[in-house]
Amino acid sequence: MTSLKSFPSLEVCLSPSLLHLYDTRGAVVVIIDVFRATSTIAAALHNGAKSVVPVASVQDCITLGNTLPNSLTAGERDGKVAPGLQHGNSPLEYPSAFISGKTLVLTTTNGTRLLHMIEGADTIITGSFLNLTETCTFLLSQKKRVILGCAGWKDRFNLEDTLFAGAVVEKIKDQFTIMCDSAKGAMHLHNQTGGNYIDFLKDSSHYKRLSAYGLQEEMAYCTTPDLHPIVPILHNGALVVHTF
Amino acid sequence: MTSLKSFPSLEVCLSPSLLHLYDTRGAVVVIIDVFRATSTIAAALHNGAKSVVPVASVQDCITLGNTLPNSLTAGERDGKVAPGLQHGNSPLEYPSAFISGKTLVLTTTNGTRLLHMIEGADTIITGSFLNLTETCTFLLSQKKRVILGCAGWKDRFNLEDTLFAGAVVEKIKDQFTIMCDSAKGAMHLHNQTGGNYIDFLKDSSHYKRLSAYGLQEEMAYCTTPDLHPIVPILHNGALVVHTF
Repeated sequence: MTSLKSFPSLEVCLSPSLLHLYDTRGAVVVIIDVFRATSTIAAALHNGAKSVVPVASVQDCITLGNTLPNSLTAGERDGKVAPGLQHGNSPLEYPSAFISGKTLVLTTTNGTRLLHMIEGADTIITGSFLNLTETCTFLLSQKKRVILGCAGWKDRFNLEDTLFAGAVVEKIKDQFTIMCDSAKGAMHLHNQTGGNYIDFLKDSSHYKRLSAYGLQEEMAYCTTPDLHPIVPILHNGALVVHTF
Repeated sequence: MTSLKSFPSLEVCLSPSLLHLYDTRGAVVVIIDVFRATSTIAAALHNGAKSVVPVASVQDCITLGNTLPNSLTAGERDGKVAPGLQHGNSPLEYPSAFISGKTLVLTTTNGTRLLHMIEGADTIITGSFLNLTETCTFLLSQKKRVILGCAGWKDRFNLEDTLFAGAVVEKIKDQFTIMCDSAKGAMHLHNQTGGNYIDFLKDSSHYKRLSAYGLQEEMAYCTTPDLHPIVPILHNGALVVHTF
């Protein structure tokens, strides 16, 4: 029988406002922004983007887009393409024929902001239902301390990111030590859905917000597991496909 | 048909570190620290304490205990009565024969601290399973905006406070507008327990922490609904029994 102590810890941070409670130094950190930054990142990279460069502001996005060759700028504010940028924040906007070989410079309200808040991590990857199984495979392969970081909505807890964190916890919990109530709560929430994520989320605040922009189909897409089975990993400020 | 807009909002704040996201001004705020400050407050007041004075530090507790007539000081640090104080933080320590007519000056790690962080609220009450139904009755009677504030554990999310918040949401949701994912998540968690709170909580971090001090029976007590059916309400810095 293996002692619990031989497994690294797995914690869930439910909001960027709680990040100071977690020691990210030396940990593998998973950035989660299901609606929709980390879903879009998975789709763009799986469809052949050379890299995705997450930036904090619209201005940074414009500046970097002007500098990098063969790049596109993308980002939304209030559900519309932000003034000065070229594209939106939807995984469906980046089919292979369009994005292959290009660099996507992306800014979002919650996900890219959280990514820039992480300090001293061993590794930063992004997770979404679109790359759920690959995310878990990666975490199991690392055998290191893990922090699942939910981007939330303007620092508030949200259901979709928590649900994804719970899906990860449920899948890999036997290989980690879980002492954190957030991880247990997320797992309980996940296990209540019976795998029907989108129906569970129809009552969530973000679903209602994005429905007002007619994005129901897109949200159903974002909650479909494993459509884009890759692991986006941060190297020198850009997310690229991890090679196992 | 009544429009949703006619109901006041109900929100759940999962940690003191998220409190800045909520506008407590003019709201009815419920402080929740199930293990064990708000359980002890309900028990002491129901058993006849004149009032419970929540204070932030052990030193404040000692100072005030020396000033107030017929008072007791209480508070724990790391599961033991804090040096300089007289009693612990257990609802079972305050039977009627002992506490009746006295003032309890209480300091705890999480609950009393959160209480002192609230600014500009219309009303502050404390909630626990021991006074669950009365808490709901009070909130329904006020017809005002409600924020359920979980004390958590050293600013982390915890399952027991969230579960209690979820119990309140489940009971009164038809009379409030709930746009907040935290409230929905708490309610989902609560509804998963089938009412068997203590079994659900046996896997929680705080249950394990307090079990190490032999407090299992006390935690079972703290998760039994309605043993102390009163509403502790803050008046001039002291919690007293609300008169309906």
